[in-house]
Amino acid sequence: MLGMRPAATNDTRLDALFLRHEVETFNAAYAAALDEQRLSDWVEMFTDDAMYVVTSRENADRGMPVGLIYCETKGMIFDRAFALEKTAMFAPRYLRHIIGNLQVLGEDRNRGIRARANYVVLQVLFDRPVAKVHQVGVYHDVFRRVGDQLKLAERRCVYDNLLVDNALCLPV
Amino acid sequence: MLGMRPAATNDTRLDALFLRHEVETFNAAYAAALDEQRLSDWVEMFTDDAMYVVTSRENADRGMPVGLIYCETKGMIFDRAFALEKTAMFAPRYLRHIIGNLQVLGEDRNRGIRARANYVVLQVLFDRPVAKVHQVGVYHDVFRRVGDQLKLAERRCVYDNLLVDNALCLPV
Amino acid sequence: MLGMRPAATNDTRLDALFLRHEVETFNAAYAAALDEQRLSDWVEMFTDDAMYVVTSRENADRGMPVGLIYCETKGMIFDRAFALEKTAMFAPRYLRHIIGNLQVLGEDRNRGIRARANYVVLQVLFDRPVAKVHQVGVYHDVFRRVGDQLKLAERRCVYDNLLVDNALCLPV
Repeated sequence: MLGMRPAATNDTRLDALFLRHEVETFNAAYAAALDEQRLSDWVEMFTDDAMYVVTSRENADRGMPVGLIYCETKGMIFDRAFALEKTAMFAPRYLRHIIGNLQVLGEDRNRGIRARANYVVLQVLFDRPVAKVHQVGVYHDVFRRVGDQLKLAERRCVYDNLLVDNALCLPV
Repeated sequence: MLGMRPAATNDTRLDALFLRHEVETFNAAYAAALDEQRLSDWVEMFTDDAMYVVTSRENADRGMPVGLIYCETKGMIFDRAFALEKTAMFAPRYLRHIIGNLQVLGEDRNRGIRARANYVVLQVLFDRPVAKVHQVGVYHDVFRRVGDQLKLAERRCVYDNLLVDNALCLPV
Repeated sequence: MLGMRPAATNDTRLDALFLRHEVETFNAAYAAALDEQRLSDWVEMFTDDAMYVVTSRENADRGMPVGLIYCETKGMIFDRAFALEKTAMFAPRYLRHIIGNLQVLGEDRNRGIRARANYVVLQVLFDRPVAKVHQVGVYHDVFRRVGDQLKLAERRCVYDNLLVDNALCLPV
């Protein structure tokens, strides 16, 4: 079920601007939550039935679903984040997301708002001095409104790298 | 000849927003066409008399026109893309564009819409595991409306790199 | 004292769009001034009482104010830029900023417009062929209107890198 949608204007060009603004605002908040390792905030950006997948471009191009991360519900996304925060052992690091080239592809009353954006994640490991490109790829998204907020019903992160530098410990 | 322009609003601030939105949407579609190696789609984003140049910052700063790529018409742009798709031998790779810092500099009825944006192209070669910065620079653009769509009448890509990592095989 | 603010519309969503557009336009012009080493233009983007700080994420997270650059007035910012242009000895280089993920956090009549954005600075040293990630981080900003223009009353640049590749010679 879709949430409340802001009152439509007569101007479809203006509606397109508002929608783009909403998605851009969402993506900036999403990146900030991950950059600051606020993983419980990150989990709240998904709908209850959300799909969150991180997979290689190689596999995605061949239609193969297997990925580094495969979550079919918000519960699984929560588990993933919780496992990271509470149990995972990995070298401390800073991450920084740049999300660009947003394309809002369409809005459908039943299926939500489809969008895509390119992303780059830059990483600094605490025992190495320089920032490196950690992962680069594209988000294929479906957003839905819940109340007056956008949430992700689906985010498929397709990364170009053949190897992910260091273990992939954190979501993108 | 300029194409149809959407009806002007009384609000010049709103017009500026709409224009920016159009150019941003264009640039995201342009990047997606190149990232997905849809080169015939890429060619269609230029006007028939379009200028497409890729040149180094060193040469551009000295006013020297020589560049890695120099196309004066859409036909030459098509040939470039076609040569790449059909005949060029080069190591397979993934590219990913991030286009940011868009500046819409002005719109002139006769000369079109002038804009600029910074770009970064990240590259993954299939025989190397990591993503690297392939090229970084600035687009100097002139857009024109053809029908209800923007097209590039001119894109001058000025890159900062002194050497382009690996041969430059694909347009930016 | 705040400058003139464009006439408010009845539509707060539209106001949010206009404000975002203003800040984005500012940031693109800011990046262009630094990329083209127009440092006197860069200085003019600050208010007279502006704070400009470049500090590490390590120090910022611990609430420690010490930074690579610490300027409390436009005069100090001017001195910094002037020292660079006239006296500093450092290897020639090209810089290219990508500013993304803008978040406009709020506007307050007295305290100005709070915003943040992620940034990446890519660098090409003239004696090395490739572009490298020079610095990556986040801007924490306060803007004020002076006349009909935005100016920075505060920009705190918090970088993730533990070491800044090569000496930090130029502002970010």
